[in-house]
Amino acid sequence: MGLVVQKYGGSSVADAEGIKRVAKRIVEAKKNGHQVVVVVSAMGDTTDELIELAEQVSPMPAGREFDMLLTAGERISMALLAMAIKSLGHQAQSFTGSQAGVITDSVHNKARIIDVTPGRIRTSIDEGNIAIVAGFQGVSQEGKNITTLGRGGSDTTAVALAAALDAEVCEIYTDVDGVFTADPRVVKKAKKIDWISFEDMLELAASGSKVLLHRCVEYARRYNIPIHVRSSFSGLRGTWVSNEPRGDQQVEHAIISGVAHDVSEAKITVVGVPDKPGEAAAIFRTIADAEVNIDMVVQNVSAASTGLTDISFTLPKAEGRKAIDALERSKPTIGFESLRYDDQIAKISLVGAGMKTNPGVTAGFFEALSDAGVNIELISTSEIRISVVTRADDVNNAVRAVHSAFGLDSDSDEAVVYGGTGR
Amino acid sequence: MGLVVQKYGGSSVADAEGIKRVAKRIVEAKKNGHQVVVVVSAMGDTTDELIELAEQVSPMPAGREFDMLLTAGERISMALLAMAIKSLGHQAQSFTGSQAGVITDSVHNKARIIDVTPGRIRTSIDEGNIAIVAGFQGVSQEGKNITTLGRGGSDTTAVALAAALDAEVCEIYTDVDGVFTADPRVVKKAKKIDWISFEDMLELAASGSKVLLHRCVEYARRYNIPIHVRSSFSGLRGTWVSNEPRGDQQVEHAIISGVAHDVSEAKITVVGVPDKPGEAAAIFRTIADAEVNIDMVVQNVSAASTGLTDISFTLPKAEGRKAIDALERSKPTIGFESLRYDDQIAKISLVGAGMKTNPGVTAGFFEALSDAGVNIELISTSEIRISVVTRADDVNNAVRAVHSAFGLDSDSDEAVVYGGTGR
Repeated sequence: MGLVVQKYGGSSVADAEGIKRVAKRIVEAKKNGHQVVVVVSAMGDTTDELIELAEQVSPMPAGREFDMLLTAGERISMALLAMAIKSLGHQAQSFTGSQAGVITDSVHNKARIIDVTPGRIRTSIDEGNIAIVAGFQGVSQEGKNITTLGRGGSDTTAVALAAALDAEVCEIYTDVDGVFTADPRVVKKAKKIDWISFEDMLELAASGSKVLLHRCVEYARRYNIPIHVRSSFSGLRGTWVSNEPRGDQQVEHAIISGVAHDVSEAKITVVGVPDKPGEAAAIFRTIADAEVNIDMVVQNVSAASTGLTDISFTLPKAEGRKAIDALERSKPTIGFESLRYDDQIAKISLVGAGMKTNPGVTAGFFEALSDAGVNIELISTSEIRISVVTRADDVNNAVRAVHSAFGLDSDSDEAVVYGGTGR
Repeated sequence: MGLVVQKYGGSSVADAEGIKRVAKRIVEAKKNGHQVVVVVSAMGDTTDELIELAEQVSPMPAGREFDMLLTAGERISMALLAMAIKSLGHQAQSFTGSQAGVITDSVHNKARIIDVTPGRIRTSIDEGNIAIVAGFQGVSQEGKNITTLGRGGSDTTAVALAAALDAEVCEIYTDVDGVFTADPRVVKKAKKIDWISFEDMLELAASGSKVLLHRCVEYARRYNIPIHVRSSFSGLRGTWVSNEPRGDQQVEHAIISGVAHDVSEAKITVVGVPDKPGEAAAIFRTIADAEVNIDMVVQNVSAASTGLTDISFTLPKAEGRKAIDALERSKPTIGFESLRYDDQIAKISLVGAGMKTNPGVTAGFFEALSDAGVNIELISTSEIRISVVTRADDVNNAVRAVHSAFGLDSDSDEAVVYGGTGR
């Protein structure tokens, strides 16, 4: 039995009862002979409450002090969890991100882990302790200041520790049973995925699936750490994410892993752009200089009569104002006609490594949307993903139609298998 | 203008408004040309709420994890305070006890400061920052674990930092205007003391005055750091505690500094102790082994007919059970007749360096109590203090009578000055 890293999110430790339930689960793993390192988030809404307090005392809380504030949340949950484990008769020690050796860069509020030096954790577990580590936080290499990793950072802490400690698996405990073929709140017939590759999971995360964050999966893939996403409530087997399935991991012989959707984006259309070299570059340099992250980009065919074209792109709604302002300021130099801003859009994505070798997937996807009466506004593809933008109102219909068309519904006999090598 | 250490208690930073008010006061000191180091407690009831959470997950929370938990409280208040100062346009940095170099022994939950190495604080203030330090916490010399100093520990943090940084003064901001000649809730005519010596303040603290804790005053006396106790609400000048008054500090020419009272103690009487050598030693060895702190001790005159005597002592009510249990277990070896436990007592103390040279003080004290119809049960004296134990019900009457008899009432023309050298 090797070393297991377990991560529990805020909803799993929302109150004293939750902490006691989680403590029992951790002790179970220890009793089964594992060395156990636990990464824990702040309790329930603690982080949001701290942010609210910060906003009350300061108009734009940020930086070093904001990180110092937020890290109090995990300090509370980790200490309580260690106490709860001790009261079950097992030895536990809690460690801040800094004590656990989570070294980051100096970008406060969204620091990146650059190294993990888990000497104290290793000593603690070798002495028979269960080690409890604060998620979401680290200490900067320069200046030794407390940093936070940004939302969802606890998952990354867990994977990074698992890599540094050469763990057998990183278990991410959450309030759902695993990764599903679509959001179960939208598609009742969505199925839990037993195993999924890092690549497909990365595309799902990039396409709006919220179960695992992109950065965490990326880290796990780089260090080849299998992730097991599962519920802290049910104790059922969840979804394994890894390079290759093990013998006991059921792999659907489908070309599609799942359908993801995202309603957090908006669309900006730059209307009447002179169709000549350098115009698109000027637009996207403006956007980049404003530090706005864009997602899909589409340029329409130029109307021959005018020599003008339209360029559309999507971006997080939260950054819409910033992008519009930047473009307006650059209007004289770029020379477009007008801007259109639309935040009533949804992105629907179909993800699966199998589609590389299955030319019919794109057609099937569009047909399913067409049959459901859903209009497509933008299209973007990668080797293992197709994404389209539709009206926000259409998103639930669209996701259900596509999920069903590709045989992912849980009452389907079998998933659709196109010709080719799709496994 | 030198360096000032300011300490703000939980009631001063109970909410966002309080934090903003305190931030303004701190910035004021900085604008006046001081270097400013601020020690802050947890917001309002935060510490109590964390203790309650701990009790919900663990039957007897204690030790390392409990300290880790409690220190989250100051982390929140110090970060918010630093943000609030920044939003006023001044530079501030917050530091945990560990970052501030507060080194303690390894006794979790009531650690003692053994050294302060304020290198980071010094650098921070020399760079023009206001340094905000978490009170009540430190890091153990061995093991580098987070420790807490026990209730009231933030005052000690402030004095210890003031000593290490060679500050001009340690300002303790609280919710009262200073140290009074008696508890103003009991004696409406109590007067604020303008200046008081370390010695008298130590005796007042030991006798039940809650404004400053004994350990903090002791530390200030050892390193000769003047303390200025004042209100964070009114901004008025408060009480200076130091070795010698400065020219602008008003010294009452009275022999008495104040009247303190304490209703937190109980009395145990060991009845029928054989009046022979070694008996008292056996009793107090038993008490000491049970780690119970005792206060006053009185042995009655032995009754010649029986050769037996009674020994009474007072102790914190919270330790009554422990003391009784320990004595009952030792009854066979010690050989007393019975135990009486009484928690309906009060201790009233008169404190003043002048009484050393004024033989009339004791008589005046007893006369005042007698005139008020208050019966005296135990008496104990030091060079600058007289304490008596009375019925708990009598405490308010007794304190008022003594306060008035010694001319401390605010409508008195002058304090009573006995013959002798009383200043």
